[in-house]
Amino acid sequence: MKFSPLLSDLIQAFTCLPGVGNKSAQRMAFHLLERNREGAIGLSNVLHNAMEHIHHCKQCRTFTEDELCDICRHPERADSGLLCIVESPQDVLAVEQTLSYSGQYFVLMGHLSPIDGIGPEEIGLDQLELRFKNGNINEVILATNPTVEGEATAHYIAQLCNEYNIDASRIAHGVPVGGELEYIDGNTLTHAFSGRRKL
Amino acid sequence: MKFSPLLSDLIQAFTCLPGVGNKSAQRMAFHLLERNREGAIGLSNVLHNAMEHIHHCKQCRTFTEDELCDICRHPERADSGLLCIVESPQDVLAVEQTLSYSGQYFVLMGHLSPIDGIGPEEIGLDQLELRFKNGNINEVILATNPTVEGEATAHYIAQLCNEYNIDASRIAHGVPVGGELEYIDGNTLTHAFSGRRKL
Ligand SMILES: [Zn+2]
Ligand SMILES: [Zn+2]
Repeated sequence: MKFSPLLSDLIQAFTCLPGVGNKSAQRMAFHLLERNREGAIGLSNVLHNAMEHIHHCKQCRTFTEDELCDICRHPERADSGLLCIVESPQDVLAVEQTLSYSGQYFVLMGHLSPIDGIGPEEIGLDQLELRFKNGNINEVILATNPTVEGEATAHYIAQLCNEYNIDASRIAHGVPVGGELEYIDGNTLTHAFSGRRKL
Repeated sequence: MKFSPLLSDLIQAFTCLPGVGNKSAQRMAFHLLERNREGAIGLSNVLHNAMEHIHHCKQCRTFTEDELCDICRHPERADSGLLCIVESPQDVLAVEQTLSYSGQYFVLMGHLSPIDGIGPEEIGLDQLELRFKNGNINEVILATNPTVEGEATAHYIAQLCNEYNIDASRIAHGVPVGGELEYIDGNTLTHAFSGRRKL
């Protein structure tokens, strides 16, 4: 004996969500059926809508339902000549929340990873090069993650910038503000030392 | 700056799922947009379908899209005169997986909890009493959870059975098979001692 066919289908469908196995999927199905059918119908509708209408911004590749995202449409940002390159839309949000950057972005939607078949084209570098050619970018800030792949990707794009005589810089890595030295991994500490600044 | 309106709606909608906060909701939205739009459309469809068509079995109250669930429609189970009372559809599945029970079920969809306004009617005891009146039930097995509320609920139903001269028994609580005594809580151990059987 199992659950009814439709209930089994519902449980199975929830396992398409990351980190959701059969047990969590059961909990989700029962929770919605017992306590929040309205919320479930709402989720169903917005899910359908989002999958139909959200695509990549034509200019920066972040997710948006418009042709150009809010940031790309911002005239002062376009005039800044400043481009910050990040791996994901969540990274854009993180940088925006600092309120200390007011240029444009380019979202790679990943990083170079030859072993997974992810080369320059898969992360939109042909599109990025077109922007470099247009001549509106004066400076590039490489804000990919401080991982092996993120560093390799930053390095690759820095070379591209060099070809077009565009200044490229890498964000600093070091001890997080408020972090305690003894809990920081050695690699980060090495970065913190080599990136030291005179006071 | 935030995500686009539709993307924000999608993230917000995922938080209707139990145990899903804003961070997990973001991860779900990006995962589906980047990697599994087909799965997302499938989830959207089955979610809508399930919320529209899944209701309670007319006889046992478990979830089903039919008027009577599979188990209630089973003629031999109906003839058994045996009724197992559980708190949830998941409990039905757990008992079924033992392959050692072949009667019918009654699913309370909860337990008595006066503090939350959950009285006999909310857990279907009026409906259960009608079944007792019909005279087809000879024996009731009370398989509610071994919690304070589960015990109180079992006790309440046992009294009801008594009124209708129906045998009622409570499943045994004790040390789980394969469990080690030193890791068992005192309450369970007390049950195990008081429920001891002669060898
Ligand atoms: Zn954009
Ligand atoms: Zn039923």
